[in-house]
Amino acid sequence: MRDPVSQPRRFAVAYHPNLPEAAVEAHSITRSLQEVGAERVEVASLYDNVLMNHIQDRIFDVLIAVGGDGTMLRAGRLCAPAHLPVLGINLGHFGFLIELRPADWPARLALLMEGGYHLEDRMTLHAEHWNGSERLGAWDVLNEVVVCRGQFVRPVQLTASVDGYPMSTYVADGLIASTPTGSTAYALAAGGPIMPPELRNILIIPVAPHLSMDRAIILAEGSSVKIEVETRHEAVFSVDGHAPITIRLGEYVQAVTGENVVTFVRFQDPGYFYRNLSGYREQNHSISGV
Amino acid sequence: MRDPVSQPRRFAVAYHPNLPEAAVEAHSITRSLQEVGAERVEVASLYDNVLMNHIQDRIFDVLIAVGGDGTMLRAGRLCAPAHLPVLGINLGHFGFLIELRPADWPARLALLMEGGYHLEDRMTLHAEHWNGSERLGAWDVLNEVVVCRGQFVRPVQLTASVDGYPMSTYVADGLIASTPTGSTAYALAAGGPIMPPELRNILIIPVAPHLSMDRAIILAEGSSVKIEVETRHEAVFSVDGHAPITIRLGEYVQAVTGENVVTFVRFQDPGYFYRNLSGYREQNHSISGV
Amino acid sequence: MRDPVSQPRRFAVAYHPNLPEAAVEAHSITRSLQEVGAERVEVASLYDNVLMNHIQDRIFDVLIAVGGDGTMLRAGRLCAPAHLPVLGINLGHFGFLIELRPADWPARLALLMEGGYHLEDRMTLHAEHWNGSERLGAWDVLNEVVVCRGQFVRPVQLTASVDGYPMSTYVADGLIASTPTGSTAYALAAGGPIMPPELRNILIIPVAPHLSMDRAIILAEGSSVKIEVETRHEAVFSVDGHAPITIRLGEYVQAVTGENVVTFVRFQDPGYFYRNLSGYREQNHSISGV
Amino acid sequence: MRDPVSQPRRFAVAYHPNLPEAAVEAHSITRSLQEVGAERVEVASLYDNVLMNHIQDRIFDVLIAVGGDGTMLRAGRLCAPAHLPVLGINLGHFGFLIELRPADWPARLALLMEGGYHLEDRMTLHAEHWNGSERLGAWDVLNEVVVCRGQFVRPVQLTASVDGYPMSTYVADGLIASTPTGSTAYALAAGGPIMPPELRNILIIPVAPHLSMDRAIILAEGSSVKIEVETRHEAVFSVDGHAPITIRLGEYVQAVTGENVVTFVRFQDPGYFYRNLSGYREQNHSISGV
Repeated sequence: MRDPVSQPRRFAVAYHPNLPEAAVEAHSITRSLQEVGAERVEVASLYDNVLMNHIQDRIFDVLIAVGGDGTMLRAGRLCAPAHLPVLGINLGHFGFLIELRPADWPARLALLMEGGYHLEDRMTLHAEHWNGSERLGAWDVLNEVVVCRGQFVRPVQLTASVDGYPMSTYVADGLIASTPTGSTAYALAAGGPIMPPELRNILIIPVAPHLSMDRAIILAEGSSVKIEVETRHEAVFSVDGHAPITIRLGEYVQAVTGENVVTFVRFQDPGYFYRNLSGYREQNHSISGV
Repeated sequence: MRDPVSQPRRFAVAYHPNLPEAAVEAHSITRSLQEVGAERVEVASLYDNVLMNHIQDRIFDVLIAVGGDGTMLRAGRLCAPAHLPVLGINLGHFGFLIELRPADWPARLALLMEGGYHLEDRMTLHAEHWNGSERLGAWDVLNEVVVCRGQFVRPVQLTASVDGYPMSTYVADGLIASTPTGSTAYALAAGGPIMPPELRNILIIPVAPHLSMDRAIILAEGSSVKIEVETRHEAVFSVDGHAPITIRLGEYVQAVTGENVVTFVRFQDPGYFYRNLSGYREQNHSISGV
Repeated sequence: MRDPVSQPRRFAVAYHPNLPEAAVEAHSITRSLQEVGAERVEVASLYDNVLMNHIQDRIFDVLIAVGGDGTMLRAGRLCAPAHLPVLGINLGHFGFLIELRPADWPARLALLMEGGYHLEDRMTLHAEHWNGSERLGAWDVLNEVVVCRGQFVRPVQLTASVDGYPMSTYVADGLIASTPTGSTAYALAAGGPIMPPELRNILIIPVAPHLSMDRAIILAEGSSVKIEVETRHEAVFSVDGHAPITIRLGEYVQAVTGENVVTFVRFQDPGYFYRNLSGYREQNHSISGV
Repeated sequence: MRDPVSQPRRFAVAYHPNLPEAAVEAHSITRSLQEVGAERVEVASLYDNVLMNHIQDRIFDVLIAVGGDGTMLRAGRLCAPAHLPVLGINLGHFGFLIELRPADWPARLALLMEGGYHLEDRMTLHAEHWNGSERLGAWDVLNEVVVCRGQFVRPVQLTASVDGYPMSTYVADGLIASTPTGSTAYALAAGGPIMPPELRNILIIPVAPHLSMDRAIILAEGSSVKIEVETRHEAVFSVDGHAPITIRLGEYVQAVTGENVVTFVRFQDPGYFYRNLSGYREQNHSISGV
């Protein structure tokens, strides 16, 4: 973790548009920021175009995101290119990207204004979809990219290469390339190890592998992974749980460490991650919900 | 295992229509049966209507199926209601439902005509899809029925009940209800235990469970399981890897032990199953292929 | 589950000698049984010789065991030959062999006297230690027998056979042969499936297998398993967590379904087992403690 | 990987004293080195005192170790303080620390003399055993240190802390702190992820955890882990599979990244590690043997 550069005075407060209580909470947070003398406070939906432009214009010191894990993922991706730190306020279940629950907010407000917090940088993946020499798309990834079966409940055959060297062929429901942040999301469900936020290694793990390599593999920092489809029937890939995109025989997804990091505001000491691990298992938690 | 009732003289030889080499092999087998004095030999695609009618009319003693694991699954389901034993001849990968490779056939022909083999009965599941009091469909299942995510790569929430008693709520890619036969197919990929063919217990196991019950559960003989969908986003179910069927919030799939068994012809001693386990892991094997 | 034969009037109340609070609770239970008109109540340590003789003499209708999971295991093994049902009263952690906590006792007393409960029979294993044709020992097993590494932290090589047929060679910390009762004890920690109490199948599962068969295997009813040591360095075996016994190269442990069952008193409906599964994971539970 | 500093001319050839064929092979290698003009070649048992002194005196350019994985572990620990690279020649099973089989040696001899190879540095752990403020011992670790059950087959309770922050309490057969090198040894058997040699992260994973944290955890570079015993019954710890040492209630083992690295000679390209992963599972491999 690192210290913030200054006392923040300019805030965006963003909420998930489908959660009415998030909007209510966001407006309440906005009022409290105004009352303690914030210079600028803008409150809007996370999908608001003006807000997105203002984020790019770098007119904020902190973005406060109100919602669930999915809200944090979107906020993180939006703010990363502008190096804007995200403070997550959670309305529902426990999640590792969340720092506060609404009830904790008033007590943390003064600390926030004084810069009494840490900044936690988390690596992203940059993923690209290729067909031969044609790049079909590119994405920034905070949790994971997964190449997997589509609607048909039938394993796909995938070959993974690392830094251009072939590694393993999988027959599986899917193959996940995850960030450390994603190690507590889908990769965890697939049986993967847990990685603290400061790591900068890609985690590779199959989902329901059938008589093929079944272990997680941690790549060295700076390594890239290429996942190629070798099955004629339908395969797809998905970034951070978003709508699946069809990927055909011979096409591949390549993932490398992204140039940007996503930065979260933390009031807790650096041990918070390990301390939360034990409690995490007992929580009822949805992976990529709103 | 049990002994066959008589010396078989009437044979169906069925092949997968998409595998040209299976048709060639089937015709070769047909000729060899004719040469050694079979009373009746009928050779046709597994999807041939006349063949299907003749199976129902119980005019055969043994059906010889030529293909892969998927061929055996289909042959098994077709022959079960008529109590017709299936002898599997495999063209490709190793599979537990397969008894012979083409090269073994000549040596086994005499044994077959003399009734020098065992019959191995394997339980089926009877699965039904319900919406309230309306039954939307019913299926005989040889491997497994799975309720799972559709194309969206997002876990579904499912509640499983056993004999009417609630058991567990899962947040997972899917939940499998498998026969012992299916314990070496998709359930194995999901991390499940291996069950020998003679068991008559249903195996329940989730795929990529997220902070919910992650262990396989073996039900008592005669128990039923109900899997209810509790997620608003798309869920599907699939029987033996066939085309997925949409299942909506509040609908459920119920599975009980089927009335019919699928009967396979075995020349090997009863230890073949355990003996094959060690070798099985090293094989390159596709689950529900042709 | 089955119904008890009659209204019980003769009770043994047994407690673990190392737990002072168990003795106190046992005496309190004894008094309450006397107050409601029990014909005979005998209270003693589970290791008391007179009590053990009286159990063999079949002068009791129910034995009430007060302690933890280890107490239940011992009570179960002692009472099995005399077909004496055990009612478990737990002082500490949750366990599947426990029916009541002390606070529940008063409310259940009347039900007990009226025979308002079920009897749940659980299979045992009969395990024998052999060196060639010499039997070195024999044990009744309620949870599991495990052949494993001794004090040296080095895997042992073991070969398992089922019904005389070789199955697999393991390089592992150990290999467990478990009853369904044991499926929620050490076998669960090793990654095994959960089996309800009424099953009568042996579960085989390795502990920390190294590049060898890593899946649980459920044997058919009536099957036996033989585990042979193939390593020159120290191996041991242990029954239900008791003191390890050295087992040498070429010696083996054989396990079959025991003739006796252990019978537990249950007030709950038959769904209690499945209902408890979800809660079970959140409990802090010691495996083979006092 | 990095390039060697010079053309090596001074060689130690060391063999495991209990393997007669290793001594034979070592002498044959020695002769071939002499024939191609090596300045100095010394051949001896890995346990030879003079050889150990000469290693400390830094009079060699490369140590050639002939044996199995255990031989490589010992050679690595001996050579690390003197920064002496180890070239592993394997007599038996496949292992990740091995570069050549005897048959490959002649073809690689010229390359070796020309410095046509890479040096692969692998991190070590420095482990210490503490009772309060008294340090009871210290070890350099190439694979793993494990705190675990002794001879009694009963789980131990352990609490792990990272960088002074409490992380999780385990009830398990043991808890492993492993290097990336050890990720393909005992930690792999316990279900852990695979880490390439160049990583410098500690891997924490329990063996047979009972209703406690069951996932591997990868620590950040530079982090330390403390494993404290909380069980009154016998616990031990072991370094790289060596003789277990008793560790008592309240005592702990602390592990940090060691100052020294173990350096291996590699002729293969850097992709060798990933390429070998698929083949690795099919190999019959003993973990910490001779």
